[in-house]
Amino acid sequence: MAPWGKRLAGVRGVLLDISGVLYDSGAGGGTAIAGSVEAVARLKRSRLKVRFCTNESQKSRAELVGQLQRLGFDISEQEVTAPAPAACQILKEQGLRPYLLIHDGVRSEFDQIDTSNPNCVVIADAGESFSYQNMNNAFQVLMELEKPVLISLGKGRYYKETSGLMLDVGPYMKALEYACGIKAEVVGKPSPEFFKSALQAIGVEAHQLLSV
Amino acid sequence: MAPWGKRLAGVRGVLLDISGVLYDSGAGGGTAIAGSVEAVARLKRSRLKVRFCTNESQKSRAELVGQLQRLGFDISEQEVTAPAPAACQILKEQGLRPYLLIHDGVRSEFDQIDTSNPNCVVIADAGESFSYQNMNNAFQVLMELEKPVLISLGKGRYYKETSGLMLDVGPYMKALEYACGIKAEVVGKPSPEFFKSALQAIGVEAHQLLSV
Repeated sequence: MAPWGKRLAGVRGVLLDISGVLYDSGAGGGTAIAGSVEAVARLKRSRLKVRFCTNESQKSRAELVGQLQRLGFDISEQEVTAPAPAACQILKEQGLRPYLLIHDGVRSEFDQIDTSNPNCVVIADAGESFSYQNMNNAFQVLMELEKPVLISLGKGRYYKETSGLMLDVGPYMKALEYACGIKAEVVGKPSPEFFKSALQAIGVEAHQLLSV
Repeated sequence: MAPWGKRLAGVRGVLLDISGVLYDSGAGGGTAIAGSVEAVARLKRSRLKVRFCTNESQKSRAELVGQLQRLGFDISEQEVTAPAPAACQILKEQGLRPYLLIHDGVRSEFDQIDTSNPNCVVIADAGESFSYQNMNNAFQVLMELEKPVLISLGKGRYYKETSGLMLDVGPYMKALEYACGIKAEVVGKPSPEFFKSALQAIGVEAHQLLSV
């Protein structure tokens, strides 16, 4: 493998994860990870293109960015690639009207989406909203469709909060897949289309990218 | 294949499912399926051994049998093979102390089981008790074990109630399997051990059995 100096020579853009890279989420807005505020500032002063790429799907980009700004980060909504807006684009393109099994914090991202008479399900890290009633509603919507469409914002198994490990969307996606005998379409990391959309936003090719 | 007369000639025992065979569950205790009360009575008057074998895990055997008796069935608790008592036997044999992710209606079956300081999880058709909080509790118990043990009472995908399709235990079992990267041990149908225990109870071999 080429030495770092040589490898970095071809780098034109940097993709930064947010949770666990820039800050640790938790009560009271979380805490910035040591050195990360300054690191983002330095990257933005450099010749490199910077894009933030997250699987966060409990919050809207507006809320997330507000939180990060309060922690001192130089970041705007337009610089963030997140699953909810990527899903909205798919919904619009394919004329899909979702039943939303999502956290209330991210609901505003779907303001422009028609959710009447659902013909698909969008599932995200819904936290406490993963009640039996809501899961069963989603299940019944899928079972009434001739060709059930399940869109999952990420497929993470769990994440860490200050209070301990928390189930992420992945296990609930698997539950609906098994119940209905279907495969979900994953929007968010590690989907190649998701990374591609982040790269397109900064006009950088995959081989010119450093991902953190 | 041999004609029915010849095939039935070797039959010594009959295994009867309960839900969907004897009665349809639903509000107000459900309703007996036409002809089934008399069919059970006739089987019991015959030379055949009769055993009831169910995956019901929202109710204790006492409650289930009480319900069936009120519908006119000749049935006692001792004639029923059900997942909860089978799981209790495994728990005792292996010194396991479960976190119980179960319906309140079946909790009495576990009265004699030590549930302090859990070293495994037992999951059953918990209905409304499949809250995010309860699922996360079960998940955290499993993740703290060196060798996580998950015992699932059945693995059904869903069942039908008068109000519509309802998610069964299987999808939630799959959720915990995926979250923890493990495989559950299924107690109940279609586990061969479960059928075997039902056969042993009436002293009948598998080839002498008719299953309904």
